[in-house]
Amino acid sequence: MRNIDEHTITQAVLEAMANSPNERLRTVMTSLVNHLHAFAREVQLTEEEWWKGIEFLTAAGHITNDKRQEFILLSDVLGLSTLVTAQNNVKPAGCTESTVFGPFYVESAPRYENGADIANGAKGTPCYVAGTVKGLDGKPVANAKINVWQSDEDGFYDVQQPNAASEHEHRARGELRSDAEGKFHFRSILANFYPIPHDGPVGAMLAHMARHPWRPAHLHFMIEAPGYQRLITHVFRDGDKYLDSDAVFGVRSSLIADWVKHEAKDGEPAFYTLDYDFVLNPASA
Amino acid sequence: MRNIDEHTITQAVLEAMANSPNERLRTVMTSLVNHLHAFAREVQLTEEEWWKGIEFLTAAGHITNDKRQEFILLSDVLGLSTLVTAQNNVKPAGCTESTVFGPFYVESAPRYENGADIANGAKGTPCYVAGTVKGLDGKPVANAKINVWQSDEDGFYDVQQPNAASEHEHRARGELRSDAEGKFHFRSILANFYPIPHDGPVGAMLAHMARHPWRPAHLHFMIEAPGYQRLITHVFRDGDKYLDSDAVFGVRSSLIADWVKHEAKDGEPAFYTLDYDFVLNPASA
Repeated sequence: MRNIDEHTITQAVLEAMANSPNERLRTVMTSLVNHLHAFAREVQLTEEEWWKGIEFLTAAGHITNDKRQEFILLSDVLGLSTLVTAQNNVKPAGCTESTVFGPFYVESAPRYENGADIANGAKGTPCYVAGTVKGLDGKPVANAKINVWQSDEDGFYDVQQPNAASEHEHRARGELRSDAEGKFHFRSILANFYPIPHDGPVGAMLAHMARHPWRPAHLHFMIEAPGYQRLITHVFRDGDKYLDSDAVFGVRSSLIADWVKHEAKDGEPAFYTLDYDFVLNPASA
Repeated sequence: MRNIDEHTITQAVLEAMANSPNERLRTVMTSLVNHLHAFAREVQLTEEEWWKGIEFLTAAGHITNDKRQEFILLSDVLGLSTLVTAQNNVKPAGCTESTVFGPFYVESAPRYENGADIANGAKGTPCYVAGTVKGLDGKPVANAKINVWQSDEDGFYDVQQPNAASEHEHRARGELRSDAEGKFHFRSILANFYPIPHDGPVGAMLAHMARHPWRPAHLHFMIEAPGYQRLITHVFRDGDKYLDSDAVFGVRSSLIADWVKHEAKDGEPAFYTLDYDFVLNPASA
């Protein structure tokens, strides 16, 4: 293994990995090395560009913390997240489609009873959300664990706020349970379109490529129940101007819903309602 | 751009990048996205594996600081560094070959006069290094800037020491100049074989793949002079047991030299000598 050059390096790396006891890891890494090297050869990557890549990854690592995930953003804007989500969530017709997870989920969101105001002080026009969780057979799924998270009217998630928020101060996110009929409902605020965080290396990359960072308004849902595949998805707001240019390629027509506006009346301020039902795929399907 | 699935996502991303005003960036990113997606499809990357990848990159970012560069290590052990170095340093026969930069160079190393002891307290058997810097035409290159850096006898670079070292306390690294005849010489210590830092995510990856982290003993050189291409290379120690399995694929036969041992005599301790000449490629070549 001396005198390795640009023609023999790929085979040398694959041979070095040949004794990996983990067959799946070897399979994944073999493909990764093949494609990484093919990329570098195809564009004749320069040493200066290689260094810019090292600097980019370093900056992404340094801006990532427990409230910000630049590597998920990177995966999102390069379409990898949508690809991985899609190829792992092929479901029978009738099931609610999946879309990207995004970087803003947090574990241990506050638990709420149905009917609660999960906004918890987040800014925005009131929005009342209701729906039913069903199986593909149409039967209601009781006691499903429903996580919801969203931006406020300024386009920020709670974890993006400057004085962000101990876990006891989460806003516009929460965990609920469906009732015996599979139903859930809560009060929150109207989600708004927003830019993905673009003050870091991923934002700089988008700017250099003349790509905008905007996402159409949506609510995130993660729904889990025994006997069903976990569903990670969004519900998008119909009419949003970014539905056809989502920076992270997450929009699916079946996930766009009408968020109905109710004008101010009799001294009551305006509010919105959203009704959306979710259909889970049986775990065995 | 709605209803993007695993078959249409690649084209959608390429279209989103189509307006990039930087043609080279668009070329590089197009190839990167194509290969990234091809990789994910080829291995049918799962959501759990995707998440492990996000975690790996995050951990690599968090362990990287001004003394440790995990992303260069990653590039090194995947052979990308050797590939990029090789394809950018095709030179006429007779020039000193290049090899990988590695993660341990630091800017503003201390400057020394010829003859100085650059070990500066680093542990190891004394080693006297001498050589000449020439051009491909055989003429000496005067006043070339020569950076050298190396591990100590325990296999550690100064920046890896627990109490690592303000920049005024660098050990076994320095910057010298060739004299009017292109000659340089300095005292240091015998470099030893060593493992790349393997207490981080790259080390864990190597362990999972049954790959060892060792590199054969070497001195790093970076040599710069007006009118010549910058040379980044190593000089390896002949006989080292890791010459045929360098963890980062950097060994070239032309860079292996005899480090001559001089036994202890007349109360003088043993020492080594290394003589090695460097031949620079003219910048216009």
